[in-house]
Amino acid sequence: MLPIINNPRPSDFEKLCQRPVIQYHNLHAVIDEIFQNVRTSGDQAVLDYICQFDKVKLKQFTADFSEFTNVSPGITQDLKNAIDVAFEHIHSFHAAQVQPEIKVGTMQGVECRQKSVPIQCVGLYIPGGSAPLFSTVLMLGVPAKIAGCREIILCTPPDRSGHIHPAILYAAHLCGIARIFPVGGAQAIAAMTFGTESIPKVDKIFGPGNQYVTYAKQYAQNFGVAIDMPAGPSEVLVYADETAVPEFVAADLLAQAEHGPDSQVILVADSVDFVHRVNEELAAQSVRLPRFDIIQKSLQHSKALIFDDREKAFQFINQYAPEHLIIASDNAGIYESLILNAGSVFLGNYCPESAGDYASGTNHTLPTNGWAKSYSGVNTDAFFKKITFQTISPQGIQNLADTIITMAESEHLAGHARAVSIRLETIKNK
Amino acid sequence: MLPIINNPRPSDFEKLCQRPVIQYHNLHAVIDEIFQNVRTSGDQAVLDYICQFDKVKLKQFTADFSEFTNVSPGITQDLKNAIDVAFEHIHSFHAAQVQPEIKVGTMQGVECRQKSVPIQCVGLYIPGGSAPLFSTVLMLGVPAKIAGCREIILCTPPDRSGHIHPAILYAAHLCGIARIFPVGGAQAIAAMTFGTESIPKVDKIFGPGNQYVTYAKQYAQNFGVAIDMPAGPSEVLVYADETAVPEFVAADLLAQAEHGPDSQVILVADSVDFVHRVNEELAAQSVRLPRFDIIQKSLQHSKALIFDDREKAFQFINQYAPEHLIIASDNAGIYESLILNAGSVFLGNYCPESAGDYASGTNHTLPTNGWAKSYSGVNTDAFFKKITFQTISPQGIQNLADTIITMAESEHLAGHARAVSIRLETIKNK
Repeated sequence: MLPIINNPRPSDFEKLCQRPVIQYHNLHAVIDEIFQNVRTSGDQAVLDYICQFDKVKLKQFTADFSEFTNVSPGITQDLKNAIDVAFEHIHSFHAAQVQPEIKVGTMQGVECRQKSVPIQCVGLYIPGGSAPLFSTVLMLGVPAKIAGCREIILCTPPDRSGHIHPAILYAAHLCGIARIFPVGGAQAIAAMTFGTESIPKVDKIFGPGNQYVTYAKQYAQNFGVAIDMPAGPSEVLVYADETAVPEFVAADLLAQAEHGPDSQVILVADSVDFVHRVNEELAAQSVRLPRFDIIQKSLQHSKALIFDDREKAFQFINQYAPEHLIIASDNAGIYESLILNAGSVFLGNYCPESAGDYASGTNHTLPTNGWAKSYSGVNTDAFFKKITFQTISPQGIQNLADTIITMAESEHLAGHARAVSIRLETIKNK
Repeated sequence: MLPIINNPRPSDFEKLCQRPVIQYHNLHAVIDEIFQNVRTSGDQAVLDYICQFDKVKLKQFTADFSEFTNVSPGITQDLKNAIDVAFEHIHSFHAAQVQPEIKVGTMQGVECRQKSVPIQCVGLYIPGGSAPLFSTVLMLGVPAKIAGCREIILCTPPDRSGHIHPAILYAAHLCGIARIFPVGGAQAIAAMTFGTESIPKVDKIFGPGNQYVTYAKQYAQNFGVAIDMPAGPSEVLVYADETAVPEFVAADLLAQAEHGPDSQVILVADSVDFVHRVNEELAAQSVRLPRFDIIQKSLQHSKALIFDDREKAFQFINQYAPEHLIIASDNAGIYESLILNAGSVFLGNYCPESAGDYASGTNHTLPTNGWAKSYSGVNTDAFFKKITFQTISPQGIQNLADTIITMAESEHLAGHARAVSIRLETIKNK
């Protein structure tokens, strides 16, 4: 049952936007030790951690998946077809995001360009745990391949027999990822940070994970490795107007709640009656779901907010900045211009979050915990950096000279001015 | 004098790419205390720090610069003209970077869009110190304004009489920035992180600074505020082929070296003789520069590398990933495809770094310390986040249903599948 908060004041928004607190139990010492060992002992340290944490004795790292070119044992044809369709959609939306070079002549003889250049070496982390998250392989692997990253590696924990789930291998194969390491946890992040004999050092690490992986990714930044974004538990906010369908809204809230006990679901509606109907549906539908226990826990820190004033409702939504925002309405389009902060938005009564989680084409790796105010979700651009180029002719530097010299001298940087004037002198003496 | 390293082996590249180590002398305790005080006591804490660090007693924060609409006392017409020209160039290059909405129909009834939405509230930090860095105001203020950020605030340390340099106010006025606070140092970063009675809490902080500001920006991320990029001392790498001009190369190296004692300049060339000629020029030109002492210090940890093999030279350059890369050559274009990691590139013998520092149109806020492998410099996109939208019709969800349900069930997320099937049932019962 979602507790109802009726027309909260804006001064209460900050408190209402707080997410469930994540407990980092003295992770620093643990992660630091793993990083130091992997840095010093390379592969051997990683193998030891796999033995310790995953209870598997491995002798080599690279998964051989030549077998996947023809047959894929262990996954059904139905699942392969589904992954193929999702791949197709994700690919077409992410391919459209590639940006052409921008070229501007700012002055006669002065040309500026901005070019997207792929990040050379990227590491994709796919969590293990209760289910094989092959969908995340597509979400990270497809844009990496489209961007043209020279080296794409994938780390994911092995199962108890040392294998990687065939659906993960199949998705990786579709994305053209050839280097897969059965390594999970903080030791995977450490290995990609420093490089080992087998695992390459990468420039940027992508992907979700548990608290150890999350902390390790943050820690990796101290050693020159970039990460996709700060991580936190998944969340959805459903905005429901008078045309929303309580059964659908409840199903969407439950889909989010089943992710984990720290997931957060928020309902913003314009009538108490509607929330009552959603609460009835939550009770009726949740008992039929296998993850009932997890759902009960995550619903404990979830809530419904009622706003009589639509503008205030969206003021709250933008301050909350949800990872997923569902606009449950037959007229969803009319709200779009009010949306200023969100990761991914689902418009209409027939657009569940699970569509974007798997197969609509959008990415499901999204900013949580309010980071949607400043961060984008993973997209093709996340696998590029933009380099600017300028070309200046002798005529161009003459045209620019006065401006540069005046500014440099005002900033007391005579050497900057001199780099221009020495060129002018040469031009005049020619 | 640049020491010469002749044809280093790739195994030595990592060591050669190391930047001068920055000493963070127990900054954590200092910064944490400032953050706590500003969080608790707001304006009063900030005013106290201004009194303590800037030796000024202030009573209010907002700089009144209505005076700048007509006249700008304290700066010359020449400087105003120069700032106007630089503004124009930076504006035209950054305006061209705005990305249109991307729209892809991935399947009948399924439409995905990606939209750039401005970050709502941004804070620009402009350092004080020996010179007023009005050029950085343009580099941050222009793209912020083009992006359409709702609230743009600027913090910069006051001088001893409590004022802000008129050139900074003039540049801010051109960019349309109305809220300027005479606050510098870690207290400015803390104020923008938490908000005070006068200074708004922001979503993202941009701009360079000393080690206190750098550490404070990193620290701000723990409180949900994004930053432009990790910061480090400025650096240039000049690649010179046989058509390079030693006088120009020396002038460019000196322009970088004058930034500060921890600046690094690297010369990559194909002949020892060329480096000797550059060293002679460095000696001759440096004595004429007012920042001779700083230059001497920064040249101490700089070096020249000789490569007989051009491919190896660019392998090193890409591993170094310089903030600024000058291609000193009459045929600079032939090297462009070899450049994989750099912040901003200056092509040709008549293209000094100072052009990009001030007025070519490119941005001068760039990734240092190897971060150019994964980070872009500040650009218009840095003031946006991208939100994805999906619209799915009843027909669309029917088309997608099998794919989503199969994938969700394989990932053991029955609630995700249910959010789809409940909609199908409703459609069928209609």
